[in-house]
Amino acid sequence: MWKPDRNSTDPLYQQIANDLEQRISYGEFPPGSLLPSERKLAEQLGVNRSTVVLAYSELRALGIIESRSGSGTRVSSSKWGATPKHTPNWHRYAKGGSFLPNPPFLRRIREALAQDPNLIDFASGELASDLVPVQEMNALMSQNPSMTYFGYVNPQGYGPLRQALVRYLAQYRGIHTTESSILITSGSQQSLYLITQCLLSPGDAVAIEDPSYCYSLPMFQSAGLRLFRLPVDERGVQPEDIRSLYKKHRIKMIFINPNFQNPTGTLMDQERRAQLLNTASELGLPIVEDDPYSLTAYQCEPPAPLKSADTLGSVLYIGSFSKMAASGLRVGWMVAPNSVVERLADARQQMDFGLSVVPQSLAGQFLASSYFAPHLDRLRMNLLYKRDLLIEALRKELQDLVEFHVPEGGHHLWCRIVPEVNDSKLLEASIQNGVIVAPGSVYGSTTGYVRFTFARARAEDIPIGISKFAQALGATIK
Amino acid sequence: MWKPDRNSTDPLYQQIANDLEQRISYGEFPPGSLLPSERKLAEQLGVNRSTVVLAYSELRALGIIESRSGSGTRVSSSKWGATPKHTPNWHRYAKGGSFLPNPPFLRRIREALAQDPNLIDFASGELASDLVPVQEMNALMSQNPSMTYFGYVNPQGYGPLRQALVRYLAQYRGIHTTESSILITSGSQQSLYLITQCLLSPGDAVAIEDPSYCYSLPMFQSAGLRLFRLPVDERGVQPEDIRSLYKKHRIKMIFINPNFQNPTGTLMDQERRAQLLNTASELGLPIVEDDPYSLTAYQCEPPAPLKSADTLGSVLYIGSFSKMAASGLRVGWMVAPNSVVERLADARQQMDFGLSVVPQSLAGQFLASSYFAPHLDRLRMNLLYKRDLLIEALRKELQDLVEFHVPEGGHHLWCRIVPEVNDSKLLEASIQNGVIVAPGSVYGSTTGYVRFTFARARAEDIPIGISKFAQALGATIK
Ligand SMILES: Cc1ncc(COP(=O)(O)O)c(C=O)c1O
Ligand SMILES: Cc1ncc(COP(=O)(O)O)c(C=O)c1O
Repeated sequence: MWKPDRNSTDPLYQQIANDLEQRISYGEFPPGSLLPSERKLAEQLGVNRSTVVLAYSELRALGIIESRSGSGTRVSSSKWGATPKHTPNWHRYAKGGSFLPNPPFLRRIREALAQDPNLIDFASGELASDLVPVQEMNALMSQNPSMTYFGYVNPQGYGPLRQALVRYLAQYRGIHTTESSILITSGSQQSLYLITQCLLSPGDAVAIEDPSYCYSLPMFQSAGLRLFRLPVDERGVQPEDIRSLYKKHRIKMIFINPNFQNPTGTLMDQERRAQLLNTASELGLPIVEDDPYSLTAYQCEPPAPLKSADTLGSVLYIGSFSKMAASGLRVGWMVAPNSVVERLADARQQMDFGLSVVPQSLAGQFLASSYFAPHLDRLRMNLLYKRDLLIEALRKELQDLVEFHVPEGGHHLWCRIVPEVNDSKLLEASIQNGVIVAPGSVYGSTTGYVRFTFARARAEDIPIGISKFAQALGATIK
Repeated sequence: MWKPDRNSTDPLYQQIANDLEQRISYGEFPPGSLLPSERKLAEQLGVNRSTVVLAYSELRALGIIESRSGSGTRVSSSKWGATPKHTPNWHRYAKGGSFLPNPPFLRRIREALAQDPNLIDFASGELASDLVPVQEMNALMSQNPSMTYFGYVNPQGYGPLRQALVRYLAQYRGIHTTESSILITSGSQQSLYLITQCLLSPGDAVAIEDPSYCYSLPMFQSAGLRLFRLPVDERGVQPEDIRSLYKKHRIKMIFINPNFQNPTGTLMDQERRAQLLNTASELGLPIVEDDPYSLTAYQCEPPAPLKSADTLGSVLYIGSFSKMAASGLRVGWMVAPNSVVERLADARQQMDFGLSVVPQSLAGQFLASSYFAPHLDRLRMNLLYKRDLLIEALRKELQDLVEFHVPEGGHHLWCRIVPEVNDSKLLEASIQNGVIVAPGSVYGSTTGYVRFTFARARAEDIPIGISKFAQALGATIK
């Protein structure tokens, strides 16, 4: 993003006016379209609001923009030639379509992080860059200038990656499968998207955990699904809840994240897993098992997925590189029966014509390389270290104000805030104080929680971040 | 795909039975699901049908599968434990969702090519691998082990790629734009998908060229759009048609591929371009300009896009790496007003969480490198050479049986077959003869055409392929 040059002899407001005039003439803001509010633009450019007020008045004087009170500042529609011509009403188009926008809290988080890269980030569900195997990836790319193919790939995904995954799934996840049962996707996100769009129809009822990552996904609503809650306690969801949801609402599918669940960190217990599989197969119900976190188990053996005990073929299994290696590769996978793989691969051709072969090749090489196992060890040790730093800081700074269970894997700590507090106020106060967290209400119906992601922030920032958060909380509950 | 080992001492049918038993136990074919027909499996494995018949009877004897006449061969549902348990009806799920499957001709083409890699391929709309800058890409990957970031990227796309595109668009396409007006997508395909899903609503009417690539995309129907035709003649579409479609059907958007159109190769003429922009802006109608082929112009200057003359901001411009460099990178871009870019970037987060940073970085480096211009020169010369080989072969082998215009750019030659012929018979006869083409009816309402893609086949195969096609045609019209 362009920023005005504070060392230039041109006044700031003039630089801003010039930049805007160019952006308008290039079509970024077509005739009639709304410009950012003065407050927002000032924030984006890091200048005083009065500077933007001056810049806008300059453009108004030139007839380039118009302001009407109450409806903001717009690019003039009259300036461009004869009256019968006009620009499409892009704002109206942008409101069209069946896609719901992302939840305001998530957009606010993204915006705040883009604005201020120095925020201590407990909100983004992703690894810190020093936990990503950057050197290993680069070594693989430069050691093996072996990519000989840059064409469209098989709709199911690149063959060598699927072969590597067959071995990986057997060795690390106890899942025995074949290349033709694997679909490569753009992370778990696209697996979930394909399932909701192509295997279910608008009006269908599904069960999801509460709280859960899925609640943060308007994707489920965009697909017109009716969502029913499976409350998560310390042992995971209660399989009996599924039977009653099935009776009442004829749910068609169950979405579950049994290993170090996002956001609660819960590990579903063995007994409930067996019951869940039983109940699902009695009802002939499919289970979607979203399993991005299991290999982060800090000290125990990585928990076996439901899929490894799924003799009846009730489970669609979803995995991803994002949480155990690199989210920016955008490589995920689904293990599914033949008819499902074929259907989803075919539909995906319409959406994006498949995933780039380059990250697929890289992911396959990495899985098969001698880098993979040591990377996992290092990752687990680091996550454990960061988790402990977080817990120590929380105990020190917030003592009786918070309650939580200690997660044994994953990236997140789910934390109840004991005093009553408004999510939105707490978020804004935190941002003001230089730290950002994800308000619990993003993930479902419970309020009074915060999700702390400790995977993202630098270790040395964790205590500082919690102390800033403690101040923000203090100010909010006052 | 697994193939039986002809050197093994185990009989072929036994190997096939063992493999199937394993795939069934792994869940690729769950209880109750349909197995491939004997004919299809024999084709896939390259064995006689009788061998598959034996393998199936072996599995039947073991109680693993069941055949009922008329309903094919299925995995036994009884074999797995107590009766009250059952597998989800995956076939029914796979039929759900609002997504239409791809057209049968396209699926048949994909299948035939997967089966027999030796088919001479005039059907796939993609570059031959020797026209893809493989060495240049590998050089960039190994010279610059400079990727320092493997995390989630900005929802609009990777910054350095958007910067490189700003320069590329100004220099090569006469489009002046800003980084924040660019959205990076998984090829033009995803740009079209995002537009149809997020800017339009079910029931909306849109105008598309006839014939056109868009007709081959069930995407438009999956989005519930009503499609109206703009017939393409040698000079492109007629802008007056737009006015009447607007009056009659209130069309909401126009999709156009003005430069070396797929499938006809047509270059829209200057006068009509000006009229088109005029008409669109009088009606306030948006134009989606899909422009993947312009830089392949063999001898003339690449034609200027509509977007470069779009002073009123009526045009959404779509570009892609696929047809000028490498389809397997899956890198495309859209230039659009701010409100549209923000809306689509936000929705795309729900679908796949954005494109992998690796191909984005590579694409940006390639565009900015000294490899790019020489690559384009080489590509254009080679396409011209192949086009001429194709034309020579058509004239030699098919003389009075075909009619066509000579394209000046792009990958395709659109060819009328003078005698009346059934598309489906011609396709099957061609495949039998070792050559594959795309039947014209895939691309719209006209019949009696074939699309020959000359970019894909090896030069030396072009004459052979046409001679095989001539035989197939001869056999079909007899
Ligand atoms: C449970 C769960 N599923 C899926 C995802 C999506 O991740 P990706 O698409 O990067 O694999 C996330 C990310 O936070 C997650 O927590
Ligand atoms: C006119 C046109 N648009 C879009 C595409 C999609 O290509 P990609 O998604 O690889 O850019 C094609 C491919 O054939 C095409 O011909």
